[in-house]
Amino acid sequence: MSAPVSASASASRSLKIGIVGFGTFSQFLAKTMIKQGHSLRATSRTDYSQLCADLGITFFSDMATFLGADNDVIMICTSILSLSQVLKSIPFHSLKQPTLFVDVLSVKEHARDTLLQVLPEDSDVLCTHPMFGPESGKNGWRDLNFMYERVRVMDEETCSSFLKIFETEGCRMLEMSCTKHDELAAKSQFITHTIGRILSEMDIESTLIDTKGFEALVQLRKNTESDSFDLFSGLYIHNRFAKQELKYLEFALEKLKQKLLKRDEEEQEANQ
Amino acid sequence: MSAPVSASASASRSLKIGIVGFGTFSQFLAKTMIKQGHSLRATSRTDYSQLCADLGITFFSDMATFLGADNDVIMICTSILSLSQVLKSIPFHSLKQPTLFVDVLSVKEHARDTLLQVLPEDSDVLCTHPMFGPESGKNGWRDLNFMYERVRVMDEETCSSFLKIFETEGCRMLEMSCTKHDELAAKSQFITHTIGRILSEMDIESTLIDTKGFEALVQLRKNTESDSFDLFSGLYIHNRFAKQELKYLEFALEKLKQKLLKRDEEEQEANQ
Ligand SMILES: NC(=O)c1ccc[n+]([C@@H]2O[C@H](COP(=O)([O-])OP(=O)(O)OC[C@H]3O[C@@H](n4cnc5c(N)ncnc54)[C@H](OP(=O)(O)O)[C@@H]3O)[C@@H](O)[C@H]2O)c1
Ligand SMILES: NC(=O)c1ccc[n+]([C@@H]2O[C@H](COP(=O)([O-])OP(=O)(O)OC[C@H]3O[C@@H](n4cnc5c(N)ncnc54)[C@H](OP(=O)(O)O)[C@@H]3O)[C@@H](O)[C@H]2O)c1
Repeated sequence: MSAPVSASASASRSLKIGIVGFGTFSQFLAKTMIKQGHSLRATSRTDYSQLCADLGITFFSDMATFLGADNDVIMICTSILSLSQVLKSIPFHSLKQPTLFVDVLSVKEHARDTLLQVLPEDSDVLCTHPMFGPESGKNGWRDLNFMYERVRVMDEETCSSFLKIFETEGCRMLEMSCTKHDELAAKSQFITHTIGRILSEMDIESTLIDTKGFEALVQLRKNTESDSFDLFSGLYIHNRFAKQELKYLEFALEKLKQKLLKRDEEEQEANQ
Repeated sequence: MSAPVSASASASRSLKIGIVGFGTFSQFLAKTMIKQGHSLRATSRTDYSQLCADLGITFFSDMATFLGADNDVIMICTSILSLSQVLKSIPFHSLKQPTLFVDVLSVKEHARDTLLQVLPEDSDVLCTHPMFGPESGKNGWRDLNFMYERVRVMDEETCSSFLKIFETEGCRMLEMSCTKHDELAAKSQFITHTIGRILSEMDIESTLIDTKGFEALVQLRKNTESDSFDLFSGLYIHNRFAKQELKYLEFALEKLKQKLLKRDEEEQEANQ
């Protein structure tokens, strides 16, 4: 049963999509994929068989059986920090056919390099980053950014069918190298998470006299906390541009503080 | 000529409001006051006679003449840093009658104390802080916070008529001590300005792959920059709770950084 799709997007082929890592984010993606009529199966460290049964998804606790289940696409949705370990545990020799591997990790060079290291050479690789999550995408994906790089694509048709999932929902499709992504994401998404986590450390809370700007920060704190600390530390550890951005943030705070102290001194001198 | 007001607010008396300091913020307030049918006059360091003429406001370059102009209310709208100096330059003996003095400064204990020091004892004092500005209030003031303390009010009627200006526009009216205000504003508004200024020092800019959270930060940077650095440093210098909040912000960043470094080390050890 396929939901109505926007007029501009032509009907896409129904795919058999296998999900590795059935945490918050892939559960969120899965709902739209099911709505579009794709057939889903999943495997994960945790046993999600009941949740999967409720959603109409086949759950495999055994990785080899999962690999043998005739997937058109295998979508890697594990945490950034566990990627290497999870990929190393996959018995790729159980694959029955060349398969498109897609990852959705929030860091891209690391995902690309790790996938290229471990995947059989006849597997296709599409690196993606949907720039939204359960909170920002809760009212649909229209106009939300979807970054991707066709790292190694021989089967164009399957790759296009997969991308169509996001096109159909109205995402802004951005083809971009993994390197460019990491550079931009360190300056934008990583800084956003960092500010959100700082506000969380400060335990900021709504007051009786909030300004609109402060309301936005309270919301940012809340959204950031709904992502795991694993995700945040993954952004820091596996995006090589992030460390520099954290330094810039520290410099900026120090510079601003110096400006305030200087101003404070000037005022005190003027009032003497 | 009075614009239609919301059904819940009864018609308010037309006031003669004299403005001291005709900068960005009081120009913004003036437009709504004129719309409501109040009669405005202004004085300022800078010569705004042309702008005032365009708006139907009488501009006085001489402070004594301004004071003699039969104002029901004198609204102090100078920068936080210039308040003492501006008040000291006012020849209060030129006042012809007891007058309600209202200030709109973003710090309240300092405004209250300075006003009580210099004003004649028969003048009323209402300390207020509209928790919005030209950006957040550009589509009207409905549901925006308006804080006030009746510091010394003998003429209840004039004070109520002044407050009605904000009630009529749908503001959330919050009666609160100046001390409580400063405590809460240091935790909320000052932190918001500080984050905005940090982002400005970092020169953050919209990227091709913005998340919704980052878009909010780009907007925050923009809004913060539209306020003067005088305003921001005024929040720091004249709200006695602000310095502690800046320290908390520094601690929070340091603590978060330590968490990231620890996690990074653990990952490196695990991968050895
Ligand atoms: N949340 C978002 O808004 C968002 C947006 C775009 C991209 N992403 C990316 O999507 C991926 C999943 O994100 P998430 O939000 O669901 O949370 P996450 O904390 O980044 O990842 C959780 C997932 O990783 C698995 N996992 C964690 N440690 C593991 C280990 N040691 N061994 C095996 N599996 C492990 C979990 O498996 P179990 O559930 O079985 O324990 C779960 O499926 C991440 O790579 C993230 O960067 C997230
Ligand atoms: N902007 C907002 O959103 C907002 C919101 C709530 C409350 N407030 C408060 O409203 C007041 C005005 O804010 P603002 O945004 O217009 O900008 P501001 O930079 O805080 O203040 C500008 C005003 O101060 C006057 N001024 C500055 N230095 C002076 C000096 N040395 N001598 C005499 N006058 C001096 C300026 O006069 P000239 O224009 O004649 O040079 C101008 O009228 C501040 O106390 C602020 O805290 C602002």
